[in-house]
Amino acid sequence: MSISANIAIALDEILQQLQAALEAGDIGAATALIQGLRPPDQADLMAELADSDQTALLPALPPAESADILEEMDDAAVTDLLAAMPVEAAARIIDQMEPDEAADVLGEMEPGQAQSFLDRLEDPDEIRPLLLHPTDSAGGLMTSAFLALRRRMTAAEAIQALREWQPDDDDISFLFVADRVGKLVGLVSLRRIILARPGEIISDLMDPEVISVPVGTDQEACAQIMARYDLLALPVVDSAGVLLGVITIDDVMDVLEEEATEDFQRMAATEPLDRPYLDTSVLTITRKRIGWLLLLFLTETLTGSVLRHFEGELQATVALAFFVPLLIGTGGNAGSQTTSTIIRALAVGDLRLEDALRAFWHELRIGLLLGTGMAIIAYGRALLWGTGSDVALTVSIAIFCIVVWANGLGSLLPILAARLRIDPTVISGPAMSTVVDATGLFIYFTVAGIFLATM
Amino acid sequence: MSISANIAIALDEILQQLQAALEAGDIGAATALIQGLRPPDQADLMAELADSDQTALLPALPPAESADILEEMDDAAVTDLLAAMPVEAAARIIDQMEPDEAADVLGEMEPGQAQSFLDRLEDPDEIRPLLLHPTDSAGGLMTSAFLALRRRMTAAEAIQALREWQPDDDDISFLFVADRVGKLVGLVSLRRIILARPGEIISDLMDPEVISVPVGTDQEACAQIMARYDLLALPVVDSAGVLLGVITIDDVMDVLEEEATEDFQRMAATEPLDRPYLDTSVLTITRKRIGWLLLLFLTETLTGSVLRHFEGELQATVALAFFVPLLIGTGGNAGSQTTSTIIRALAVGDLRLEDALRAFWHELRIGLLLGTGMAIIAYGRALLWGTGSDVALTVSIAIFCIVVWANGLGSLLPILAARLRIDPTVISGPAMSTVVDATGLFIYFTVAGIFLATM
Repeated sequence: MSISANIAIALDEILQQLQAALEAGDIGAATALIQGLRPPDQADLMAELADSDQTALLPALPPAESADILEEMDDAAVTDLLAAMPVEAAARIIDQMEPDEAADVLGEMEPGQAQSFLDRLEDPDEIRPLLLHPTDSAGGLMTSAFLALRRRMTAAEAIQALREWQPDDDDISFLFVADRVGKLVGLVSLRRIILARPGEIISDLMDPEVISVPVGTDQEACAQIMARYDLLALPVVDSAGVLLGVITIDDVMDVLEEEATEDFQRMAATEPLDRPYLDTSVLTITRKRIGWLLLLFLTETLTGSVLRHFEGELQATVALAFFVPLLIGTGGNAGSQTTSTIIRALAVGDLRLEDALRAFWHELRIGLLLGTGMAIIAYGRALLWGTGSDVALTVSIAIFCIVVWANGLGSLLPILAARLRIDPTVISGPAMSTVVDATGLFIYFTVAGIFLATM
Repeated sequence: MSISANIAIALDEILQQLQAALEAGDIGAATALIQGLRPPDQADLMAELADSDQTALLPALPPAESADILEEMDDAAVTDLLAAMPVEAAARIIDQMEPDEAADVLGEMEPGQAQSFLDRLEDPDEIRPLLLHPTDSAGGLMTSAFLALRRRMTAAEAIQALREWQPDDDDISFLFVADRVGKLVGLVSLRRIILARPGEIISDLMDPEVISVPVGTDQEACAQIMARYDLLALPVVDSAGVLLGVITIDDVMDVLEEEATEDFQRMAATEPLDRPYLDTSVLTITRKRIGWLLLLFLTETLTGSVLRHFEGELQATVALAFFVPLLIGTGGNAGSQTTSTIIRALAVGDLRLEDALRAFWHELRIGLLLGTGMAIIAYGRALLWGTGSDVALTVSIAIFCIVVWANGLGSLLPILAARLRIDPTVISGPAMSTVVDATGLFIYFTVAGIFLATM
């Protein structure tokens, strides 16, 4: 669960003092409270302040510090904040941001507004190429601020290059090597450079087998490659193999969290939110949910048609109706259990599309076991309720068939979706329940028709 | 979705050659195929082989390489594999594993078996302390193989220490500083050490403000701290502040994936699996699912009680029964959408427990909007079906009430669970649907009682 309670409590206290200082109009005291904290904590505090307080406080901090704070905030919130500030002050802050973060923020703006900021930046050419790539691709994720060594350099020259190059942060442990035309040819660790004799040549120290991705690669694929091969930095290249930028591990951790959140929300049949929950308007959330809710509703009307079809059976034995929610509910639950397991196994790479039959056979056997267990319990429960043994038997056999059916279907549908290149999370728990509801009713009344007629 | 198709295809081809070589009994050719690949790919290939082939192949590789492969495999699978190998050969491989990975594997074994391996290791004292900590705590995640600098060292001495210390991998960009009794006192980047004059003292170069965690900290909290503050390494200390070990970012990425998988599976009311899906036996998966399925079944029998309670209304107007699955299905879907959003917002820290009322108010308004939309559609759909306008109105008003109720309940229950220090994923989609089914039926027939009686 959320970050340790200690941090939250400490921040709450500082927030109160900060709000008191701002109310008293004492910007100096307010900046003093903010300074000395770490950027993620500063960003949390800022997000709690009124918009007018945020726009008052930010220009009072050194631009580099403001930039660090904005990098930790939600892109859309940053765009709003910068738009509310004097243009010159805002441009000074953007200048100090990491190029990839600055590009994300400018990418959220209207083209005209983004252009007016670009015109005021000291080094717009560092950011401009990043704006060309979709935000959810390798090109949108990479930073253009990286140091590339040359093959013919000596270890001493590499250290000199490192000295002259001044990035904001110190977390470089690997350096990439490029040839004369900028083509990526190798990778060398900082440690190897230090431990080498000063005259040793980089091409002798480097590892020529570097994992890289083309600039258009999807961000989730980038994250999976970095996680799979334990990479701290992933170079991004164009079609000619020229090094364009570097994706760092911190960006990728955010991507993994974002993608997990999206899958999580899609699994409950709602479109993912683009902003933090409480910052998303009621109207936006409603829009994200109503489509699926309606589609499922219309599909679910099939259950009404099935019930009408069996109206005769229903009128003859009203007791059958008592078990309807129970049977379809259990089928939906069994189906949801199955799809969620399968979808996650596909997402983390435990299950491949070629394994469809193995997964089906796995789930079929699980369904037979679960169905048998549930059938026994359901039979006993129905008798306890005083239901006639013929209806109890019908319910028991129906629940067995429904669970097996739900497990089989739940294993096949997500894999089928993935094969058709549809995101398998369309087979969400609610979608699965809806499909099993109508078909489950059909199974139930068919079983009833057979057993109640012959008894 | 899963790793890029190119890698998978290339591996498939190698796998076929590998299996052919093993079938022909040509271990030399088989090891040649494996060597030269990266450990995660090697581990994938191994997992596809028969158990007997795995135990034949591993001892034929250099122990350091076998160790790298095992580090990438599932702990439980590694335990089985080592147990099937000659003890001496297995011990040589464990000796070459990272201490934290070796401890995870030994922790999976029977105590007697783990002890017999420990007795054969070259440096058991590096692993033994790690076995004392729960695997899902900071102590279970950390490695004891780290280099701690002393405050009085010069930059040149630090580089010398780095030279003498030979870890497997090169990805150290930050070094920790400890005092005479081993207490953590600072952090210094490799880059600062290189760029410093050789005589500069570490205590002048280091940052004394280091984020660290106590050894008992939950692994998920460690992962969140590293993600929040963009740390590549997190030091672990005892209650006196003595540096015990270091958690590295690659371990934490696995934790984040693991925790997301657990939440994902719990959200569908199934206990998380400890091994990859296809490697988990049918019986184990059944055991993980049956508990929830039964509990939900028994709760769902409430719907039967509600239906019996309203048997009179049901017999008077059979048409009411046709809408039962539709109404409770929609309520369950709306409830699932809400809980999943709230649970994820809690997990990623977008929502705090203090925000319960704000979340409730948010969802209430969303419920009013969604409920209004659904009520209009449901009214039209019922009329289209030829249902009487009184029943159509009943259905329409009932669906409005049920959606609002599901949204309100869906926002409160996960936060309530979290406040009671219960994992909020107990309010899974299926659990939410089950609760809404019984209460939704009660709402439906109450509305029916009011409207059908007065018309």
